[in-house]
Amino acid sequence: MLKVAIAGATGYTGAELMRLLAQHPNVEIVCVTSEQSSGVLLATRLPFLKGFSDLTLEKFDADRVAEGADFIFSALSHTKAMKPVSHLINAGKKVVDLSADYRLQSVQAYEKWYSAPHQEKALLKKAVYGLPEIYRKKIAKASLIANPGCYPTGALLPLYPFLKSGEVDTTREIIIDAKSGVSGAGRAPTDATHFPEVNEGLVPYDVGTHRHIPEIEQEIAVFEAKIIFTPYLLPINRGILTTIYLPLKRKMTQDQLEEVLYEYSSEFFIRLMDHPPNVRDVRGSNFCDIAVFATSGGRTAIVISAIDNLVKGAAGQAIHNMNIMMGWDEHTGLTAPPIFP
Amino acid sequence: MLKVAIAGATGYTGAELMRLLAQHPNVEIVCVTSEQSSGVLLATRLPFLKGFSDLTLEKFDADRVAEGADFIFSALSHTKAMKPVSHLINAGKKVVDLSADYRLQSVQAYEKWYSAPHQEKALLKKAVYGLPEIYRKKIAKASLIANPGCYPTGALLPLYPFLKSGEVDTTREIIIDAKSGVSGAGRAPTDATHFPEVNEGLVPYDVGTHRHIPEIEQEIAVFEAKIIFTPYLLPINRGILTTIYLPLKRKMTQDQLEEVLYEYSSEFFIRLMDHPPNVRDVRGSNFCDIAVFATSGGRTAIVISAIDNLVKGAAGQAIHNMNIMMGWDEHTGLTAPPIFP
Amino acid sequence: MLKVAIAGATGYTGAELMRLLAQHPNVEIVCVTSEQSSGVLLATRLPFLKGFSDLTLEKFDADRVAEGADFIFSALSHTKAMKPVSHLINAGKKVVDLSADYRLQSVQAYEKWYSAPHQEKALLKKAVYGLPEIYRKKIAKASLIANPGCYPTGALLPLYPFLKSGEVDTTREIIIDAKSGVSGAGRAPTDATHFPEVNEGLVPYDVGTHRHIPEIEQEIAVFEAKIIFTPYLLPINRGILTTIYLPLKRKMTQDQLEEVLYEYSSEFFIRLMDHPPNVRDVRGSNFCDIAVFATSGGRTAIVISAIDNLVKGAAGQAIHNMNIMMGWDEHTGLTAPPIFP
Amino acid sequence: MLKVAIAGATGYTGAELMRLLAQHPNVEIVCVTSEQSSGVLLATRLPFLKGFSDLTLEKFDADRVAEGADFIFSALSHTKAMKPVSHLINAGKKVVDLSADYRLQSVQAYEKWYSAPHQEKALLKKAVYGLPEIYRKKIAKASLIANPGCYPTGALLPLYPFLKSGEVDTTREIIIDAKSGVSGAGRAPTDATHFPEVNEGLVPYDVGTHRHIPEIEQEIAVFEAKIIFTPYLLPINRGILTTIYLPLKRKMTQDQLEEVLYEYSSEFFIRLMDHPPNVRDVRGSNFCDIAVFATSGGRTAIVISAIDNLVKGAAGQAIHNMNIMMGWDEHTGLTAPPIFP
Repeated sequence: MLKVAIAGATGYTGAELMRLLAQHPNVEIVCVTSEQSSGVLLATRLPFLKGFSDLTLEKFDADRVAEGADFIFSALSHTKAMKPVSHLINAGKKVVDLSADYRLQSVQAYEKWYSAPHQEKALLKKAVYGLPEIYRKKIAKASLIANPGCYPTGALLPLYPFLKSGEVDTTREIIIDAKSGVSGAGRAPTDATHFPEVNEGLVPYDVGTHRHIPEIEQEIAVFEAKIIFTPYLLPINRGILTTIYLPLKRKMTQDQLEEVLYEYSSEFFIRLMDHPPNVRDVRGSNFCDIAVFATSGGRTAIVISAIDNLVKGAAGQAIHNMNIMMGWDEHTGLTAPPIFP
Repeated sequence: MLKVAIAGATGYTGAELMRLLAQHPNVEIVCVTSEQSSGVLLATRLPFLKGFSDLTLEKFDADRVAEGADFIFSALSHTKAMKPVSHLINAGKKVVDLSADYRLQSVQAYEKWYSAPHQEKALLKKAVYGLPEIYRKKIAKASLIANPGCYPTGALLPLYPFLKSGEVDTTREIIIDAKSGVSGAGRAPTDATHFPEVNEGLVPYDVGTHRHIPEIEQEIAVFEAKIIFTPYLLPINRGILTTIYLPLKRKMTQDQLEEVLYEYSSEFFIRLMDHPPNVRDVRGSNFCDIAVFATSGGRTAIVISAIDNLVKGAAGQAIHNMNIMMGWDEHTGLTAPPIFP
Repeated sequence: MLKVAIAGATGYTGAELMRLLAQHPNVEIVCVTSEQSSGVLLATRLPFLKGFSDLTLEKFDADRVAEGADFIFSALSHTKAMKPVSHLINAGKKVVDLSADYRLQSVQAYEKWYSAPHQEKALLKKAVYGLPEIYRKKIAKASLIANPGCYPTGALLPLYPFLKSGEVDTTREIIIDAKSGVSGAGRAPTDATHFPEVNEGLVPYDVGTHRHIPEIEQEIAVFEAKIIFTPYLLPINRGILTTIYLPLKRKMTQDQLEEVLYEYSSEFFIRLMDHPPNVRDVRGSNFCDIAVFATSGGRTAIVISAIDNLVKGAAGQAIHNMNIMMGWDEHTGLTAPPIFP
Repeated sequence: MLKVAIAGATGYTGAELMRLLAQHPNVEIVCVTSEQSSGVLLATRLPFLKGFSDLTLEKFDADRVAEGADFIFSALSHTKAMKPVSHLINAGKKVVDLSADYRLQSVQAYEKWYSAPHQEKALLKKAVYGLPEIYRKKIAKASLIANPGCYPTGALLPLYPFLKSGEVDTTREIIIDAKSGVSGAGRAPTDATHFPEVNEGLVPYDVGTHRHIPEIEQEIAVFEAKIIFTPYLLPINRGILTTIYLPLKRKMTQDQLEEVLYEYSSEFFIRLMDHPPNVRDVRGSNFCDIAVFATSGGRTAIVISAIDNLVKGAAGQAIHNMNIMMGWDEHTGLTAPPIFP
């Protein structure tokens, strides 16, 4: 059994790691940390876990964590994960970092978008961006995985095959219109996520200024593609629905477009749909459902993906990465169906 | 036009006062206050009001408010309304206080339940509990109205006719099971009202310890009745559904029970229903829908009410009180139908 | 008092007409019809209206309706409004038809998209498309108004000023990504609108095949613009949020874009926002909130609108049209603020 | 591997059986039936199952089902399960029937509440009521299990220990106030479960007339207790929160009440809570969370339970019963944590 620690266990990502790892046959959770609730039982802060964990939350202490655990999921927040992760890597541990601290390879970009200096530039170069369907081989050899953001996951998976196919007209912008459930905003209460403010509403936010823009652009930089990105706060708990308006070099038919997606036909976690994906159909699972639609003009394709932001967009993808890093069957612990309704 | 001020205008009660008073023909709002957003346009903090108000929020200053306004709605929070309200009354103004500060006539009870000393005992004695259907005459002569709490409003209105009828068996407890939408918890974000914590859930809280228990008990003390009260946080924005299990002295039929409610037949804001009330059917309105059901045993009646906690349970009832205090038609500004769906 | 009838009064549009007209000072509702609930009290089918209407539902009979009413709102469904509307117009009445039967001026297009022959081609030519901000003068002289669809309203209002300005690059498609609350699908229950199927989900539908596409295209045909249109079913009751990705002929700054919208500065029902509109802020009102955002590339603008699909997208716009047809102040009966939260 | 069939696989109970059985190590699903969707892929009617089942739906044919399967879950609806279940039992199969057809041991009661004759009286006597915590031993020997209704499960589990303890005052009625998510009403769309009718509402229904009343009364008949039962339609997908106001023979303290519940301390699927249970904390799981609260008067206790109506209230309990009938570890396939948020 692999001894695993979760740093920052009381947020939604930490909670979801606990839920999924409870079903993982090769893992034992030995340590859970929280800055604000140290000394409290994890199941007190997360009552749904009653009966599944008798661990007590501790303040994060890199030495203590490294002593007990061999693999660490860091669900600490941006700018606060940088140092702890570095400590753990230096102690010879494997780490999946779910913050943004090791995602942007450009220090300049990081410092601009996260308003903080990057203090681990050497380690940054060794971090691997943890999108398994794309970087499987690099992940297998990595010690530090920068787990992708939820929006980038929902956008990049449907984008890659098309960009690789050479069919995308990169002189026009790729438009990404992405709607996210509220758990994506984290567990700390804010004005914007107070129930009556969100419920029965829909609102775009950070139009043109969201931090996931540089992350998406980095990953598609090789294709010299530009994006316009609009995220929305959706009054549901879980799920991101991403609609991509994809400029094409030539007119393409429905069949031609679907053929591009066949590249994914052997990917267990990607389900190719012949109807528009619905976030409700991936809830609680590591699936990314994708469909593509030709338009009457033919020079723009509509590609739509649905993921659960807490699973494929965070904890599930992190476990997928762990499975690869450990040389296990990739799907271990991630094979339960979605929950519907 | 009556010059009106709203103290604490950016919370949900303040917002609802703004919405309803915008439709009131006899009123001009001259001043809105906020401790945290002073200097900001009201419509910036409440974007739905764009086009309806160009007022700028001010810090509460009793002298300034008294200078400009003749009637004040105080939507300040518990313990913080006491002094400002007293100042305004001393300046000769009429005030409807929507906090609990002048509701409990027992200083001892207030200090126990609100953990603060009551510093305006003399004024407390002059305050009138603002339940118009019950205290209409006293309200007409009052300068200070203690506007009832939302749960007490939903419980007392269906209870009164039965208690007055003498049919209630006061040796057994009256059970009040009351489910409230989240706006009842106010606009300040908290862990418990964070969207993903509330959504798709239902949970009782403050079982046996809610502050509205002494308020309800005070109002039915004359009948020597005891209550058990269980409130719930319901994943909707507005509405309180109150189910009362009422012990009866004798077996009563459906007809006999309905007859007791006929007392309300001329009350515009009370609608007697022949089917279970639904909070959705009073949304946005000052109605209290009530129905009663006999049980097969006959010695317990089920009385159910539905109100909008922000209207009949707060701002609407406050305006109703103002109308009575000013000698206007009681319904002025409160005659729009509910909004469905 | 104008004598008004509502044909098809028990659906959501009919219900909303009842709600809004209850606040209209110049109107008396004399007749309400329903095919399935004739003989039943309107307030039985719409309990929120208890106390506001003692009318009994009748089967639609053009002669009877024409006898009692001088102005008719038809909320009958597509293909079923055609004949009744024609009857009423022939009887010399004024009609606002909320179905699609008189919206598409091309008989061919109508018959293709609605799979039914158009049997009133002569009358079709006289119908005026009821978008008041655009066709105010024609509406004033019309007897028959084809009230716009909800999606077209949310799309056309933000589009017009830009198309008129000549800044739109019509060689590229205008992308319209529009999310609608469930009341837009009507009151008849279906698999797709069953609560657990919709709740906690988000799904596009009719991608590239929605009936509102020809309606939007007709209205912008003069500008020779083409659109791509993606609608979504959003798990809320009311509201359409429309995001338009607008191709521009030249790079435009934020200031230049906002200047285009100033055309609307005197329109009461259009509110120009400096932040992204939220459907929650127009709920229950006839407002269309609009904002525009420049993109870093500069050659695409993001224009966003929020409306309440049942008000500005249906009943409110219908009443606005009536006000214009009758020569009344345009805003009569439509001046209540939105309801928040 | 046990060969299992699901009759009525496209409703919510059938869907949930599919979801849970996909994680069960001892079971292979060989046959799924549907009257309305025969010939269609199960994953077409339940897209969340894509990748988990390539079965095609068949019309129910008892002989065919009996040929392929050794264990059958019948999720057919009330009155329609009676004959098929009898056929399968006669063919020597084991059956868990999730309808009400074999729950009421009184033929008279069945025929009154379900308005249909009972045609399998002999088999009815052999059916065992499948509440594992209470009837474990009988279940182990049974061929036919009548799986309990969702409301009875949520009510009986918290009631039993108190009734058995002899502390309940059966001269007064036990009040059961139970709020259910919409999936409890099934997957067929109706007026009452149409999204905009339910959303943002709360309404009691079948006050005093719900079919689960005789089921609960049957199970507590031995204690000669009477109940008052009020169910509500709650605007969430899953979950039943049951609040029981329990009359006591004597004043009992919090400690004394909690002691009664210790009877459950070794039951894996019952979690004793020291705070009010929340339906969100059992979502997707087979847990029944229970808490008890003393009242100030002391002669009434408040007992509260939370279950997922589709799991503990239907499919999960059915699988629990199967595990017992097959002699397997009781928890097999049911050990995943709830899903939060």
